[in-house]
Amino acid sequence: MKLANYFPILDWGRKYRGETFVNDAVAALIVTIMLIPQSLAYALLAGLPPQIGLYASILPLIVYAVFGTSRTLAVGPVAILSLMTAAAAGKIAAAGSPEYIQAALILAFLSGAILFGLGLLRMGFLANFLSHPVISGFITASGLIIAASQLKHIIGVPASGHNLFEIIYELITHLSAVNLPTLAIGLSSLVFLFWVRSQLKPLLKTFGLGDKIATIIARAGPVFAVVLSIVVVAMLRLDEAGVKILRDVPTELPSLGVPGFNRDVWMQLFGSAALISLIGFVESVSVAKTLAAKRRQKVDPNQELIALGASSLAAGVSSGYPVTGGLARSAVNFDAGAETPAAGAFTAVGIALATLFLTPYLYFLPQAVLAATIIVAVLSLVDIQAIKTVWAYSKSDFLAMAATILMTLGFGVELGVLTGVGLSLFLHLYNTSTPHFAFVGQVPGTQHFRNVDRHAVVTSERVVTLRVDESLYFANARFLEDTVDAVVASKPEMKHLILMFPAVNRVDASGLESLEAINLRLKDAGVSLHLSEVKGPVMDRFQTTHFLEDLTGKVYLHQYEAMEDLDPRIARGTARRGEPGASEDGTPNFTI
Amino acid sequence: MKLANYFPILDWGRKYRGETFVNDAVAALIVTIMLIPQSLAYALLAGLPPQIGLYASILPLIVYAVFGTSRTLAVGPVAILSLMTAAAAGKIAAAGSPEYIQAALILAFLSGAILFGLGLLRMGFLANFLSHPVISGFITASGLIIAASQLKHIIGVPASGHNLFEIIYELITHLSAVNLPTLAIGLSSLVFLFWVRSQLKPLLKTFGLGDKIATIIARAGPVFAVVLSIVVVAMLRLDEAGVKILRDVPTELPSLGVPGFNRDVWMQLFGSAALISLIGFVESVSVAKTLAAKRRQKVDPNQELIALGASSLAAGVSSGYPVTGGLARSAVNFDAGAETPAAGAFTAVGIALATLFLTPYLYFLPQAVLAATIIVAVLSLVDIQAIKTVWAYSKSDFLAMAATILMTLGFGVELGVLTGVGLSLFLHLYNTSTPHFAFVGQVPGTQHFRNVDRHAVVTSERVVTLRVDESLYFANARFLEDTVDAVVASKPEMKHLILMFPAVNRVDASGLESLEAINLRLKDAGVSLHLSEVKGPVMDRFQTTHFLEDLTGKVYLHQYEAMEDLDPRIARGTARRGEPGASEDGTPNFTI
Repeated sequence: MKLANYFPILDWGRKYRGETFVNDAVAALIVTIMLIPQSLAYALLAGLPPQIGLYASILPLIVYAVFGTSRTLAVGPVAILSLMTAAAAGKIAAAGSPEYIQAALILAFLSGAILFGLGLLRMGFLANFLSHPVISGFITASGLIIAASQLKHIIGVPASGHNLFEIIYELITHLSAVNLPTLAIGLSSLVFLFWVRSQLKPLLKTFGLGDKIATIIARAGPVFAVVLSIVVVAMLRLDEAGVKILRDVPTELPSLGVPGFNRDVWMQLFGSAALISLIGFVESVSVAKTLAAKRRQKVDPNQELIALGASSLAAGVSSGYPVTGGLARSAVNFDAGAETPAAGAFTAVGIALATLFLTPYLYFLPQAVLAATIIVAVLSLVDIQAIKTVWAYSKSDFLAMAATILMTLGFGVELGVLTGVGLSLFLHLYNTSTPHFAFVGQVPGTQHFRNVDRHAVVTSERVVTLRVDESLYFANARFLEDTVDAVVASKPEMKHLILMFPAVNRVDASGLESLEAINLRLKDAGVSLHLSEVKGPVMDRFQTTHFLEDLTGKVYLHQYEAMEDLDPRIARGTARRGEPGASEDGTPNFTI
Repeated sequence: MKLANYFPILDWGRKYRGETFVNDAVAALIVTIMLIPQSLAYALLAGLPPQIGLYASILPLIVYAVFGTSRTLAVGPVAILSLMTAAAAGKIAAAGSPEYIQAALILAFLSGAILFGLGLLRMGFLANFLSHPVISGFITASGLIIAASQLKHIIGVPASGHNLFEIIYELITHLSAVNLPTLAIGLSSLVFLFWVRSQLKPLLKTFGLGDKIATIIARAGPVFAVVLSIVVVAMLRLDEAGVKILRDVPTELPSLGVPGFNRDVWMQLFGSAALISLIGFVESVSVAKTLAAKRRQKVDPNQELIALGASSLAAGVSSGYPVTGGLARSAVNFDAGAETPAAGAFTAVGIALATLFLTPYLYFLPQAVLAATIIVAVLSLVDIQAIKTVWAYSKSDFLAMAATILMTLGFGVELGVLTGVGLSLFLHLYNTSTPHFAFVGQVPGTQHFRNVDRHAVVTSERVVTLRVDESLYFANARFLEDTVDAVVASKPEMKHLILMFPAVNRVDASGLESLEAINLRLKDAGVSLHLSEVKGPVMDRFQTTHFLEDLTGKVYLHQYEAMEDLDPRIARGTARRGEPGASEDGTPNFTI
């Protein structure tokens, strides 16, 4: 049982049947066809030779099949990690150089080791530091950068910027050097692929094809573009007219081996590898969960850390670069009927066969077509609606999102993510540092207590009740002190202060210290401090300290009990408007 | 009114009367007598010439009197900031060199500017990042380092380490060089001062003196030691026997002027200045609040930022070093009857007069006596009880505290504070990332719902209720997803899931995204998602989005309503044990 937790293959492998094999094999075939151009394109995006993309789609998939808890996740190279790899490896060496390829390999190995280690330590919660608006903003911004960076292949000019403004500037300054045959191929591919994506599926369905089949065929659009463009370029020898083509891709399987250790380079790449691993993990798990829920299956995030870690380690020892679960590819795998992770292993076999036997036929494949498939794929990642939603929902979250987008566009992926994470932490602490407190009064004739600002309630001048609407911890403990200080200074009649704790889920040591300070200061001011409706776990903690003994007042189970004890005429409603109530100096002691 | 907020002197100055003047003047006289040896001692601790301590006790006090909101806070040099100044300036130059003195001046100016700026921006909440266990641990560790560092003056050997282990090592290796007359003076001062601190006050009270007078005389113990030791050293010319004495202190007032700007040095000192300003602010405000509460007065933390900032700026333009409100000194000021900040201004006049006319008489003052006063003062900062309390109350807070203490002792004050702040943030996020969720059932015969693990309650197999006991935000949103995923996979009978939100005070955009994902996944799994007891502010936020429209179930005001609607036989208690209940397949649908 324990072993099967770490090797889910032992679980599903035991029940593997012939029917499942057929379904998995069909799905694998479809995913393989889709993955061949994708892996070549993403390798180019990462600044790597095309075969590296293929290599990253063989061993990692087999390893994921052994460790993965998602039945349908399709692992391999993805756009965002390719961009992040280019940014990180670009700091070490020039794109395409042996040192650069080595850096990409080290990134895979390191990010795999980081994920694997986090999985063993069950530290998956670290991914939570990436808030949703930060992830969403980061992906949108990355999609824009990727799309812009691929435009150079579409119009056939050189450019190499890592932020949006550099890229746009380079494109504009090189515009006179445009290669017309490349532009023709690039633009027509773009138009074709956008048409396939938006129009082909409905069209196929009007021809009577089922929804799933139509989806799969529409997803295979890039394959048609690839085949057609190879034929055209080869027949017209457009490569001699300046169209950049793929040329020879080595027809051999990846060599195995741990990347050479160079302390400086590994240290330099460690931070980037950590970011790559977290971003890859968050994206992959979200895809896996969505697909699993459709079949009431479960994905175990900590085991996913181990599985994705092992996959990236596998990429790192088999001449690959960082991999993770891809969104579109996994959806195709799911729709095509994959039932177990074996489909991924079969895909790996398909890619291995393609590497050995298919690549010679890709000699004339124009880079412009690969660039067009990337652009069409990543523009679907750009989610402007999410920005609007977050703006409407929470200005604070929007701030973190906007900062992530602008920093990513202007200063690159790493600074973008780090800014977003830092800012969302800061804003969270800022927001919870001034929590909602409400003065409450009794709803006449009931035992209910409500915010004096929102309801017609009865209050006492002698007994003031403050409801604390947030857990107390270091970031807001002093705000409670300040609030109580202000109450003491502004309500000279007050003899009792009740802090009402129904929404206080925890009180840390700073919160306790503040409560103790409040108790002492109120004592000096001649006011008793009481608590009401304290939750069990909070009360358990208080009992390990002297606080309850030192408390000048009592702890009441219910707020009504407290009022009945401390100001019974208010609590029972026997004080009347205009009549001297329970306050000692005879002033009316309630407001409605 | 607005102006008086920024210049509280306009408020209390208007009502200033003769009687108040007498009280303030008496308090100022007592504080001055206490402050003279203190300011000399703390300057030595900071590695600065003694007059710098006096200079830091003149202009800053006058400025605080103009801006401060505490009536009784006594501003000036304090032990912890002196140690932090030594650590920061020591990175720039050798102690006592002109560059070192300049660095201390820049630290005062920068930390003043930082506090002043934070005050104008009303960013006092930044101080909340320093949790109480971190502050408490930091002060305890600093107290130990300061005490150890002063031992060299007691035994008369050179030593200059910045962490506890360096200092102890240096003391031991220099032990053979001990100067016996110094040791005699140092030890007898220590014994005398400890005796004064612990025994003199009770003794004076048995002679019939009042509590306040006895307290004040006991606090003036260092003054007796100073006077006596000067007489002894001067008469026996012990300076010729190797006793280090104060010698000439310039009898002139500080020169005024902004410290010279050197970009590199200022940048290097900025981080240290930020730490100094935050630590100083937190300590000072805590003292000010405690004293204010005794008289039902109020301290405004944001105006205190401005006041303490202006004071440190004043130190920075008048040849001083960083200052803040001191604990012992403020307590003496309070006990001596100070009524307004004017007492501080009068103290400044006293120190100015002492600088001009008293310092020649301090020529023979042995450094060992000053060191002894420091040791006695800082050992009262060492709070071992607080460590035990935090250990008992919260292991997580203890971890942050222990890390702060060990890092401060082993690697110095700055790394100590930074480690503590980082770790407490991390642990807070970790702790709230796995919040408490409880499956709840109905208490039979009532409309109350309680945790199934703690109470005998009735539950339905078709309708599962999960109570969320924490606000939802990015660090815990995915944990809710994981929990719901596990519920879906483990309860095949479930048709409805109710998330009960009575303790959810806010839901950020990541939380909303997770709820939307949960809603969609449950829909795919054939389960409706409902919410109950959602708070007003949370509901207001939901209404800005599509979430409530997309929700497959309903939002119920009360949990009982939800059960009555979704599984009425359970809610009304008409299902009986062993009898097929409301579940559709006829299995018993409750557990008790």
